[in-house]
Amino acid sequence: MTGAECLLRTLLNNGVDLCLMNPGTSEMQFVSALDGVPAMRGVLCLFEGVCSGAADGYARMLSQPAATLLHLGPGLANGLANFHNARKAHSPVVNIVGEHSTLHLPYDAPLTADTAAFARTVSGWVRVLESAAGMGAAAAEAVAAALQPPGQVATLIVPADFSWSEAGAAGSAIEWPAPRAPDSARVREAAEILRGREPAGLMLGGRALLARGLAAAGRIPAPVFANRYAPRIERGADLFAPVRLPYFPEPAQQALAGLKHLVLVETPPPVSFFGYPGQRSCPAPEDCRFHVLATESEDGTAALEMLAGPAPIARPRIARPALPTGAPLTATTVGIAIGALLPEGVILSDEMVSSGEPVWAHLAGAPRHDHLPVTGGSIGQGLPVALGAALACPDRKVIALEADGSGMYTLQALWSMARERADVVAVIFANRRYRILDVEMRRTGATEIGPRANDMMDLRRPDLEWVKLAQGLGVAASRATTADEFIARFRDALSERGPRLIEAVIEE
Amino acid sequence: MTGAECLLRTLLNNGVDLCLMNPGTSEMQFVSALDGVPAMRGVLCLFEGVCSGAADGYARMLSQPAATLLHLGPGLANGLANFHNARKAHSPVVNIVGEHSTLHLPYDAPLTADTAAFARTVSGWVRVLESAAGMGAAAAEAVAAALQPPGQVATLIVPADFSWSEAGAAGSAIEWPAPRAPDSARVREAAEILRGREPAGLMLGGRALLARGLAAAGRIPAPVFANRYAPRIERGADLFAPVRLPYFPEPAQQALAGLKHLVLVETPPPVSFFGYPGQRSCPAPEDCRFHVLATESEDGTAALEMLAGPAPIARPRIARPALPTGAPLTATTVGIAIGALLPEGVILSDEMVSSGEPVWAHLAGAPRHDHLPVTGGSIGQGLPVALGAALACPDRKVIALEADGSGMYTLQALWSMARERADVVAVIFANRRYRILDVEMRRTGATEIGPRANDMMDLRRPDLEWVKLAQGLGVAASRATTADEFIARFRDALSERGPRLIEAVIEE
Repeated sequence: MTGAECLLRTLLNNGVDLCLMNPGTSEMQFVSALDGVPAMRGVLCLFEGVCSGAADGYARMLSQPAATLLHLGPGLANGLANFHNARKAHSPVVNIVGEHSTLHLPYDAPLTADTAAFARTVSGWVRVLESAAGMGAAAAEAVAAALQPPGQVATLIVPADFSWSEAGAAGSAIEWPAPRAPDSARVREAAEILRGREPAGLMLGGRALLARGLAAAGRIPAPVFANRYAPRIERGADLFAPVRLPYFPEPAQQALAGLKHLVLVETPPPVSFFGYPGQRSCPAPEDCRFHVLATESEDGTAALEMLAGPAPIARPRIARPALPTGAPLTATTVGIAIGALLPEGVILSDEMVSSGEPVWAHLAGAPRHDHLPVTGGSIGQGLPVALGAALACPDRKVIALEADGSGMYTLQALWSMARERADVVAVIFANRRYRILDVEMRRTGATEIGPRANDMMDLRRPDLEWVKLAQGLGVAASRATTADEFIARFRDALSERGPRLIEAVIEE
Repeated sequence: MTGAECLLRTLLNNGVDLCLMNPGTSEMQFVSALDGVPAMRGVLCLFEGVCSGAADGYARMLSQPAATLLHLGPGLANGLANFHNARKAHSPVVNIVGEHSTLHLPYDAPLTADTAAFARTVSGWVRVLESAAGMGAAAAEAVAAALQPPGQVATLIVPADFSWSEAGAAGSAIEWPAPRAPDSARVREAAEILRGREPAGLMLGGRALLARGLAAAGRIPAPVFANRYAPRIERGADLFAPVRLPYFPEPAQQALAGLKHLVLVETPPPVSFFGYPGQRSCPAPEDCRFHVLATESEDGTAALEMLAGPAPIARPRIARPALPTGAPLTATTVGIAIGALLPEGVILSDEMVSSGEPVWAHLAGAPRHDHLPVTGGSIGQGLPVALGAALACPDRKVIALEADGSGMYTLQALWSMARERADVVAVIFANRRYRILDVEMRRTGATEIGPRANDMMDLRRPDLEWVKLAQGLGVAASRATTADEFIARFRDALSERGPRLIEAVIEE
């Protein structure tokens, strides 16, 4: 078989059956091979950042890799920002990048670039294929590398001639690596610290924020915090809810105030998103000591279960909010409406920054759902991650909580949602502004915002019309300007299979 | 003054007065400083690839750099694909990238990445600022580096604390470097070759394709070719027209068949865009020898003038085409209509691939205009380059010739066109397909295109509605489905200041 077919079959042998692609000439062999390998699903994206972001969302939900297929160094470049987020999420991704044929590469053709240098910026594993005969082994190794705990982007660069040449048999199945078992000495140490007289807390990240880990954490008599940049958090009124660390350093410091010990479970120590003049980067008290119960490559859930008592600690049940009928439309009333109406089993892809906090709080009393937050802060994550989550879990409704500024980076994701009939409701929080920058500008020392500075944060002049943008990409869309309108549109969107887009024009 | 103000003032001292930006928290000081430095024009873009592509277009027209202001490694990542094109165009660009403050950087916050590694993939010069006091000197050095012949992307990475700290006086003006004078020995050698008995031709690139270089080339009795990936070509019925090398290897080989010598002026030897099974990468005959008259860093125009005879060689004048009234709408009839109606002084930003050749031919008889072709092949260049050209030359009409597939990578450029009232007419050649890939797939060995492969090249399901997309971004738009409709829409668009978009729904 050709190298291209060998690669597709090797991926399939290793459980990778989705390929998010924006191919060009150097990848035509892979596209051509799709018809002979029907078990591999190809999903076309109109921009590479949609491929990389969707692969991230897919991996967060299934803990297994999708493949991406990108075109040479410059095509890979367009995928890097969302690969950065995948890297921070420890999402396994098998990233296949076509390269010029080995005979053509020395000629410095227009598209020639240092593809491996692009790849290394975001990948934990990079390999340039050296022969067609090596394809099967290299592709299997790429899957193994992607799954190396805690998960990473593995990039295999494939010169075009190795795709169109004879490559021999497909690579065989590798054994999927599992996270390492927890270290019992560290479990004992953590137990002593938490039983001790000095104030101590737990901070969870990684897969410790899924239902089993949360159930165990809820049986530990200590304050429990969640890394706000974890890849996936299960939530719901029936689940124990750790305290998510706030975005800005001052409230984050307040949340952690007085702690002498913080026991870390699948998370590094907490750090502020940005540094500010005169502010410490770590929100924990200066004399707080960190203790690792489980690293990001270890099974933190098992460690929590070893640490947990037999019975849940009684906590007040969080009620669902009432519908904000008659209210003006704000981030808060949108959040209340979503919290009131959210059905069970939803996946939320959340890329809000300035509007994020008012929504998060109102979801705590909703039925069980998954929340996929920002991990790497690279903007343009929300819609692609929603697409990937919908491809991973076709029987679940996905809701993308997206800001108007952030959504513009990768709006092409809407087209792939339409094409794949992805069951996504995109809610655009349209404040017509890079609102977060107002706050950030003042924090970095600016005393007042002049008209020219203001203009660089303003998304009016002209207004973005998200309804037209969505329709132009084949997605049904509507606008809401009051809470009642939003409630009606959101109910409609929940009652049908998606994709749908609601532009929520919010007041401050 | 703060580091941020010092940087803006140093850029101004060195003639850089346009900053294309997509800033975040780490760049807020620069945004804040805009109000105190009114001579610096800030242009906001909704995606970083618009900034980098617009800087490329600006540089191609003025041979001087604009600044770009991007947010950390991931923001830079989104600009890389169009910086790749700028690198291949030898466009001077001063690329400023904000970085976390030096105290925050070691904490591996979500947005932390190896910013310099991202930068090195496309930059000829990269520097990480080491102190606020060094800002003035570093910014001046960045401008000098950008202008180093033949021009390059120079990236200065600025930690946030050096922007908000005291930096002292602005950097002084550097002397702009000029291209080196031609080597007289090489001029003599070229003259001998062209006078000799073996068939010999000239190939022009760089600034040798502007009017003065073309005038000189037109006085040399030899076949003259143009590198099709040159950054800017002046054209018009009154100008000598070299033969642009065709895209595919076979017709390119035919154009150069029989030549024993090719004299290169500001261009490397010709190379095919892609390599194919059994095809040579260089379209020149195997026994053709290359001779460098002027490198890309030398003044090829002066060299051509030393080589040229006193009088132009008589050539038939190329007539303008007649309007394709009553015809169906195809790439060819759109090309004919544009060729028939093009007013003097237009700048064409051309990113068509499959539709490119039928248009190019019909522009030869039009009045004097500039043509900005694809240089690096990284898709998403056309609309941003058009924006940059319009900012560089506000008194000239810009026409973007854009494919529907290519336009989708950076459609956010339309919003900045609307905001800046850029005088751009975007013509979208909507064939609803990655048409070029049909051809490329067959060339790389596929004998037939199966339904699943076909689906990966198909832009229907759903159709992209460019009129709605443009309106959603604030740009007036209309659709044409016959040649007569296109003629009417295009005439309208020419009669008003832009921006305007015309979706030309073309048959094959």
